[in-house]
Amino acid sequence: MLIVQKYGGTSMGTLERIDEVAKRVIKYKNEGHSLVIVVSAMSGVTNKLIEYAEFFTKRPQGREMDQLLSAGERVTSALLSIALVSKGYEAITLSGRQAGILTDNLHTKARIHSIDTRRMKNELDAGKIVVVAGFQGVNENGDVTTLGRGGSDLSAVAIAGAMDADLCEIYTDVDGVYTTDPRIEPKAKKLDKISYDEMLELASLGAKVLQNRSVELAKKLNVNLVTRNSFNENEGTLITGENNMEAVLVSGIALDKNQARVTIRGVVDKPGIAAEIFSALAKKDINVDMIIQNVGVDGTANIGFTIPQNEFELAKEVMSQTAPASKIVCNSEIVKVSIVGVGMKSHSGVAALAFSTLAKEGINIQMISTSEIKVSMIVHEKYGELAVRALHDAYKLDK
Amino acid sequence: MLIVQKYGGTSMGTLERIDEVAKRVIKYKNEGHSLVIVVSAMSGVTNKLIEYAEFFTKRPQGREMDQLLSAGERVTSALLSIALVSKGYEAITLSGRQAGILTDNLHTKARIHSIDTRRMKNELDAGKIVVVAGFQGVNENGDVTTLGRGGSDLSAVAIAGAMDADLCEIYTDVDGVYTTDPRIEPKAKKLDKISYDEMLELASLGAKVLQNRSVELAKKLNVNLVTRNSFNENEGTLITGENNMEAVLVSGIALDKNQARVTIRGVVDKPGIAAEIFSALAKKDINVDMIIQNVGVDGTANIGFTIPQNEFELAKEVMSQTAPASKIVCNSEIVKVSIVGVGMKSHSGVAALAFSTLAKEGINIQMISTSEIKVSMIVHEKYGELAVRALHDAYKLDK
Repeated sequence: MLIVQKYGGTSMGTLERIDEVAKRVIKYKNEGHSLVIVVSAMSGVTNKLIEYAEFFTKRPQGREMDQLLSAGERVTSALLSIALVSKGYEAITLSGRQAGILTDNLHTKARIHSIDTRRMKNELDAGKIVVVAGFQGVNENGDVTTLGRGGSDLSAVAIAGAMDADLCEIYTDVDGVYTTDPRIEPKAKKLDKISYDEMLELASLGAKVLQNRSVELAKKLNVNLVTRNSFNENEGTLITGENNMEAVLVSGIALDKNQARVTIRGVVDKPGIAAEIFSALAKKDINVDMIIQNVGVDGTANIGFTIPQNEFELAKEVMSQTAPASKIVCNSEIVKVSIVGVGMKSHSGVAALAFSTLAKEGINIQMISTSEIKVSMIVHEKYGELAVRALHDAYKLDK
Repeated sequence: MLIVQKYGGTSMGTLERIDEVAKRVIKYKNEGHSLVIVVSAMSGVTNKLIEYAEFFTKRPQGREMDQLLSAGERVTSALLSIALVSKGYEAITLSGRQAGILTDNLHTKARIHSIDTRRMKNELDAGKIVVVAGFQGVNENGDVTTLGRGGSDLSAVAIAGAMDADLCEIYTDVDGVYTTDPRIEPKAKKLDKISYDEMLELASLGAKVLQNRSVELAKKLNVNLVTRNSFNENEGTLITGENNMEAVLVSGIALDKNQARVTIRGVVDKPGIAAEIFSALAKKDINVDMIIQNVGVDGTANIGFTIPQNEFELAKEVMSQTAPASKIVCNSEIVKVSIVGVGMKSHSGVAALAFSTLAKEGINIQMISTSEIKVSMIVHEKYGELAVRALHDAYKLDK
């Protein structure tokens, strides 16, 4: 098999850990697999380099930042290659450029355009383990670019897609994807399989295992993604297309605490008013999540929406230019609880069970938003963890 | 003027110092000069990266080492560029590759083949300060190479030559080239000018300001080299061709403590015997410096030579395979004192003054070796510093 493995900053955090990673890679090599290993910088290094730059300015130029930040992955990829060679295996480290990763020109958050896989294929054909510096590529000018948060995952998925790899394993320090956060519900179970779509919903709802960009790309390129723990031998969670799976009703419960709610009361109910409000927010790059609109009295409407908590102050400022302050009600003491499952598509009554479960616990639902495969509910933050446990139980996720 | 400036690891050692370097660069920019700045890694970083690699193996592969080691200069060059931009100046950082530095394939000690100056020229034409990561280039496969010890100096000199720069300033933490080591002779004076050839002799004799490779390249490319102190505004020493200079008799006195002496007694005096001995040493990469051969009694000869002290043990081992141990006399309690000056070419009696000066101090000279512009003498190590002071005085170098 051709396997792409990606090791994150914690897995590459010390020389001893890099040595452990080398041993794991060698185990796969000895089983006869072809291997492309994508690595992150040692944990903390990228942040340290950012601090260095911020000593000089809070707004360093993107191009120069990318040249700076790309150094961290060059170090770990070279070290892993040296570790592999020292154990008697042929290996070669490739920078993003050498691996053929061509991106657009959006420094510090570039998108991968294409991958010229010739060098990687040649090195694999020569029997070498290929170690690629993650998180980086080059634009058409030959300038180094970086891919933003979660960029090394993205490198791995893109390489797996371009190389038509059989498997793309993402190693972190957790065992895989859980039915819910085990710190909230100790009965949470690790999932063996989950679909891209479910994973996307869970990730956007606060599950931190994988960034949405990587899952989206895996879905698009049809890459079989596995998230595993680099500190043990557990099996991990396979993230793949739906076809191969029995459609479970609900796969997981997510809790997103990074939410704030804004309500604008008594907006004149005329066409275009929502557009005006949300364009103003979009101009400031504020990510609006859930939106509800109720008809009020006297031809006015109430518009409510949620945003990330760290954009709360900025949103209030924007809103004050759109509507009189007296009409704006803000509330950051809320959380979003979501149930996710592809089974919802074909089963009715899934959402109803969620509502009745929360009602039974005396939890008031402030907002509801649904998609084909998820139901999200805004509740007071003090009920967040109780709601997760109750729903986990109601959908029998511990079974 | 087009000026290439090179800042070493101490000058780039902290964020505060990088900030000072930025201010110095800006002073030159404000005077209207075009600037290419070549930087080393922060002091200690390259050694730390080597330690990392040696955690895995004492003999890491050259290609992988170069990928690893090149990271240090990428960080400092990006940071200096960020510092310059933060002060309102246009700057761009270029890796060795982006600066067009093409080398041969000798990883960890590559030689520069050629420099494609187009990108640097374009950026200078656009009014930017160009900041180049020193010590690195790429080979024809697109793999990163490094240039070995003193590599950043070499980058700077090569760029100055290729760009036809008016001046190449090498910044370190000393003021320039001295008539002798000021720690030995407090009356030592900084030289305003010195010729390439004299500098070459002084460097190979233990003056640590510049590596010979860089001076040789500067001579070959006719680059006006200045060594200066990045921590003050002093003028430094200009290293240039002889034509512009009044031919001083003696420019400096050098003391090399890293010497050991080997004598082989009673070697059969036949053709080829010296060749046999020195080929055996060369095969082990042992650098032989001074060689003398005396005819002994009974058709035998004594052969004496000096080698670097750290190759002493290896040399003894090699010699024991060439000659019986009883005939080999080794002595590491010696130093080499040298006087250097282009004036020797046209003045007689320069060497004689050296011999009589040492005689007057009661210092026995064990070996003598001369070239057109230098006289080197091996003496017992306990007399080394006394010899330097006496010669410095005899040639009136403090005047």
